[in-house]
Amino acid sequence: MKVDATMAQIDHMAQRITALGLTPQVIHGKHQTVIAALGQERAGLTEVLEPGEGVEKVLPIMAPYKRASSELTRERTVVKARGLEVGGTRVTVIAGPCSVESEEQIVVLARKLKDLGATGLRGGAFKPRTSPYSFQGHKELGLKMLATARAETGLAIVTEVMAPEHVPMVAEYADVLQIGARNMQNYQLLQAVGDSGKPALLKRGMSATLEEFLLAAEYILDRGNPHVMLCERGIRTYEDHTRFTLPLATVPYLHDKSHLPVVVDPSHGTGKSKLVIPMSRAAVAAGADALILEVHEDPEHAVSDGAQSITPAAFGQLMDQCRRIAAAVDRTL
Amino acid sequence: MKVDATMAQIDHMAQRITALGLTPQVIHGKHQTVIAALGQERAGLTEVLEPGEGVEKVLPIMAPYKRASSELTRERTVVKARGLEVGGTRVTVIAGPCSVESEEQIVVLARKLKDLGATGLRGGAFKPRTSPYSFQGHKELGLKMLATARAETGLAIVTEVMAPEHVPMVAEYADVLQIGARNMQNYQLLQAVGDSGKPALLKRGMSATLEEFLLAAEYILDRGNPHVMLCERGIRTYEDHTRFTLPLATVPYLHDKSHLPVVVDPSHGTGKSKLVIPMSRAAVAAGADALILEVHEDPEHAVSDGAQSITPAAFGQLMDQCRRIAAAVDRTL
Amino acid sequence: MKVDATMAQIDHMAQRITALGLTPQVIHGKHQTVIAALGQERAGLTEVLEPGEGVEKVLPIMAPYKRASSELTRERTVVKARGLEVGGTRVTVIAGPCSVESEEQIVVLARKLKDLGATGLRGGAFKPRTSPYSFQGHKELGLKMLATARAETGLAIVTEVMAPEHVPMVAEYADVLQIGARNMQNYQLLQAVGDSGKPALLKRGMSATLEEFLLAAEYILDRGNPHVMLCERGIRTYEDHTRFTLPLATVPYLHDKSHLPVVVDPSHGTGKSKLVIPMSRAAVAAGADALILEVHEDPEHAVSDGAQSITPAAFGQLMDQCRRIAAAVDRTL
Amino acid sequence: MKVDATMAQIDHMAQRITALGLTPQVIHGKHQTVIAALGQERAGLTEVLEPGEGVEKVLPIMAPYKRASSELTRERTVVKARGLEVGGTRVTVIAGPCSVESEEQIVVLARKLKDLGATGLRGGAFKPRTSPYSFQGHKELGLKMLATARAETGLAIVTEVMAPEHVPMVAEYADVLQIGARNMQNYQLLQAVGDSGKPALLKRGMSATLEEFLLAAEYILDRGNPHVMLCERGIRTYEDHTRFTLPLATVPYLHDKSHLPVVVDPSHGTGKSKLVIPMSRAAVAAGADALILEVHEDPEHAVSDGAQSITPAAFGQLMDQCRRIAAAVDRTL
Repeated sequence: MKVDATMAQIDHMAQRITALGLTPQVIHGKHQTVIAALGQERAGLTEVLEPGEGVEKVLPIMAPYKRASSELTRERTVVKARGLEVGGTRVTVIAGPCSVESEEQIVVLARKLKDLGATGLRGGAFKPRTSPYSFQGHKELGLKMLATARAETGLAIVTEVMAPEHVPMVAEYADVLQIGARNMQNYQLLQAVGDSGKPALLKRGMSATLEEFLLAAEYILDRGNPHVMLCERGIRTYEDHTRFTLPLATVPYLHDKSHLPVVVDPSHGTGKSKLVIPMSRAAVAAGADALILEVHEDPEHAVSDGAQSITPAAFGQLMDQCRRIAAAVDRTL
Repeated sequence: MKVDATMAQIDHMAQRITALGLTPQVIHGKHQTVIAALGQERAGLTEVLEPGEGVEKVLPIMAPYKRASSELTRERTVVKARGLEVGGTRVTVIAGPCSVESEEQIVVLARKLKDLGATGLRGGAFKPRTSPYSFQGHKELGLKMLATARAETGLAIVTEVMAPEHVPMVAEYADVLQIGARNMQNYQLLQAVGDSGKPALLKRGMSATLEEFLLAAEYILDRGNPHVMLCERGIRTYEDHTRFTLPLATVPYLHDKSHLPVVVDPSHGTGKSKLVIPMSRAAVAAGADALILEVHEDPEHAVSDGAQSITPAAFGQLMDQCRRIAAAVDRTL
Repeated sequence: MKVDATMAQIDHMAQRITALGLTPQVIHGKHQTVIAALGQERAGLTEVLEPGEGVEKVLPIMAPYKRASSELTRERTVVKARGLEVGGTRVTVIAGPCSVESEEQIVVLARKLKDLGATGLRGGAFKPRTSPYSFQGHKELGLKMLATARAETGLAIVTEVMAPEHVPMVAEYADVLQIGARNMQNYQLLQAVGDSGKPALLKRGMSATLEEFLLAAEYILDRGNPHVMLCERGIRTYEDHTRFTLPLATVPYLHDKSHLPVVVDPSHGTGKSKLVIPMSRAAVAAGADALILEVHEDPEHAVSDGAQSITPAAFGQLMDQCRRIAAAVDRTL
Repeated sequence: MKVDATMAQIDHMAQRITALGLTPQVIHGKHQTVIAALGQERAGLTEVLEPGEGVEKVLPIMAPYKRASSELTRERTVVKARGLEVGGTRVTVIAGPCSVESEEQIVVLARKLKDLGATGLRGGAFKPRTSPYSFQGHKELGLKMLATARAETGLAIVTEVMAPEHVPMVAEYADVLQIGARNMQNYQLLQAVGDSGKPALLKRGMSATLEEFLLAAEYILDRGNPHVMLCERGIRTYEDHTRFTLPLATVPYLHDKSHLPVVVDPSHGTGKSKLVIPMSRAAVAAGADALILEVHEDPEHAVSDGAQSITPAAFGQLMDQCRRIAAAVDRTL
């Protein structure tokens, strides 16, 4: 309560807390009075109580994400999709082009990636683009190309779904449904992916707090789909030498607060191919359960995201280096 | 095209542009005709097009948002929806509760707002909420309550639509479709709103650049819907004393770069009711074409956003003060 | 305390609180225990208590800036320096070039500014520059030029001091000592300015919270110098269309939390001359007590900050427009 | 200059550069001589200089930090201070308490750190504090305690200097002068540290771009002091679960742009002791040349920064884990 809150205001707020099904406990200090509201925390209480007369501020204590939280579910989740397994001892690598460009492109590349150690194949069939005039992806045709690449290699397919009405179609071809950063708070989409029961790779919104991120995961979990991977892909800050700022402290922090596995995307997280290898090493050292990487045969001619794509040759070096780091943290890759 | 270009020459150039894989947009001015070539900008186009008969010059337009840009469309857009008119001399005020709570609530409040000078009524029927456990709105029932309030007062209804499949239903009741900050880059939704032809109020994403904001507007405009209002509602920064940081330089900047009207939301932009009146004054002084405000009879008991809602009494003061500011910039309110 | 905190941990923390001269009050909830620590708040308590075993988090309640706070000093401070008066009914305008370039430049310009209504003259003699190879200012010679301009016009001189050892020299010539954004947490400098007793204009650091800003003011106030003006000059965010983001909610927020007057700098706050006039209007509408503006006879040839400087002609328009806004908020200018 | 340029030609061009108001820096390579022209870049210089006799070509160097840049100085800098060596194959560890609290504390801790593998001892004698009411350090007494700890252990002393006038005193006791994040653009301080010739550890400002960071280093280098270490310590963003956001892409980026060694501070960079070990591993994996860490016997009772300090036991684990990571990137620790 404020320094000059009246007794009537304090009593009034205590009664409001009771009316909300909570137990008020009034603490009179020398300068100020604090009212503790005990009971089941639920979202929205702060905004309900804060406008009260005489209230200085409302401070919540417990995590509002119950299903994603490690407070209630202590066993770590391992998400499995075909050969892909994320959250166990092995650090998993998902790689592929930004966009699926042609069947030949994706099949040839998939074979190389498989040989170099990838277990998942990424590739965009539906592309969210800032401009309506940019290439929007090959859509279902692209999904079919991915399915062909899977048939040839056995790699699990990870691809983005952008709208609730596309979920059934994308789920038919994909092994993992990716929800992009721009859609992290597209709640209809989260629910549709939740309803599909398919493994989901949820990317952090570019200005989402980790609480918002976990609450977005909660939307999927709440529909009975426990197969959720959290993906750190960089946040928007004032920094201008990289496309985004990749905050790796996210990895151990999420591992502490949640039982869900954590994936890191150093390609979007830096936007510069030169930085992808060192940041992949760092992600594995920080404890990442998987990496998702943009690889292109010829980054200069990629239809999208060329600047941050690495070549298969560089991908091979990355795998070698990350394998050594994985061993240094008692994991394999 | 040259001042004396013939219709045949204009048609011919439009066909050439199409043949190059671009979309021509022919704009007939009083003295001259301009052909905008929409599509992926690429090197060499100038040399290819410039020798065409009747061509005055080819100007590569750096702004990637062609339809939203003031470079091609010099006349300012005025968006009209029932009694609401945004972009003219009058500064318009849209007000109402965060969520539509009950028919009585919304009708009683709408009458007061109307009496105090509002011309639009805002109110959420579909609510995007960070947590799946928060109140998600009364949905279609809420829309009906808004329609009742409109029938009683004549206020234009401004309400959020969250998913492409809801657009027809929301469009049936609403006068203006609001696209929330979290959905600014939900491209399916932007296209569906574009296709509806209904006036749209597009909120800036909380970490969107102004170029991304204008490109999101472009998605709506590109579907043939020119009735777009841009709404600055605050951005996410490191500041912790307000819910968001409200950057009013957005207003004159957008007015310079675009012909679309600019709305300011001081309620979300600050998150604190105490700051809403001074920031409303500042927004009008900066040149805002409209304000959108959260007003609640009893903010303490609002089901959402109570902390940033003002009372009808405070709204009355706000109107008085903003009216004086509007006069000081040669506008009415 | 954490959900799984033991009774021994709770007792231990209660004892630590007692040992720190505070009174612990233990509140047992269903899921969690909270310990309130009552008594005189002081800086550093959070960091002292947070590492305790079983502690979830420490939440401070009262403002740590005592002298700057409006909680204890309710009367608003008016800072006076020669003809300049900041914090009263009149909105004051301080204007001048980024750098003092020559005596003729500053004298001629000062006369025009005076005629157009300025009461303070700004101009850099010591220039903090990002690069060691940029012009660093005319130093004492520049101060003498400013003094000449003052002798000619009566305008109060506002100029930056960059190092504690320069304070006596700058104080000899200047009426107001400006502390730049980069030096907001240069504590030796704050103390030296405090010791000088001279009126101070303290600029907000480009990533300072308002609490840090007020605590920086506290360093000056704590040395017995009450003549402090707080200056909002824009913060660093991800926005790229302006040099900084100018958050005007700072003005009413600081007016609420502190008794010190608030100045706004729309020149640095936007970095674009086109935006200076509308943002000056907005600042006055938000309640700013003064504006500080960069004006240059020939911005294209200014030795520094040309892009954000306005001409004397534009300054005249700015004064006309802001005078009308000032009247609309019952002030003069 | 051309491969066969004469000394006379080189001297002549250096004089021409001086006459143009720039500072020539002559760099004699094995095969060729390069003359760097330091100063304000301006148009037309290339045309003026290129016709000079013996000139091979004139290259405008976009990087404004000439001395810090890897464009001119290709050999990596190794900074040496007593036993400390930063920038070579070995990853160096500097550890110690936030503040020097007592002679006993620092000596006992230094011995443990030395045994566990640290080669530098950090500890604050002068403490920059947000509030004037917080503990400001033991000042010269603290420096003497550090010197005692060095005498006992041989560890090199790294300690902060906050004001130009303190440089001689701090330089008398310290092996490395630390410039704190808040002082990164305190140019008088940078110059004083430059003049001292002592090894410097320059922390990145909490909202500095990497260009600003390198230009701050340039202020030290420009005074003839080449012994500069760059320290990434976290930046201010909207993230609220850590004290700062630690962007490790800084490490490979700076290694590419500059020849100076890069140090990482995971203690300030996260603000949470739990995150210090994984982020130390990640920093080494990203290529950091050194770590600087806050270690305290009893973080709960530290006078400052307890929340981010680790115990000597945790420090031992950190060393073990980082040694394995260092080996995985072909370095020692």
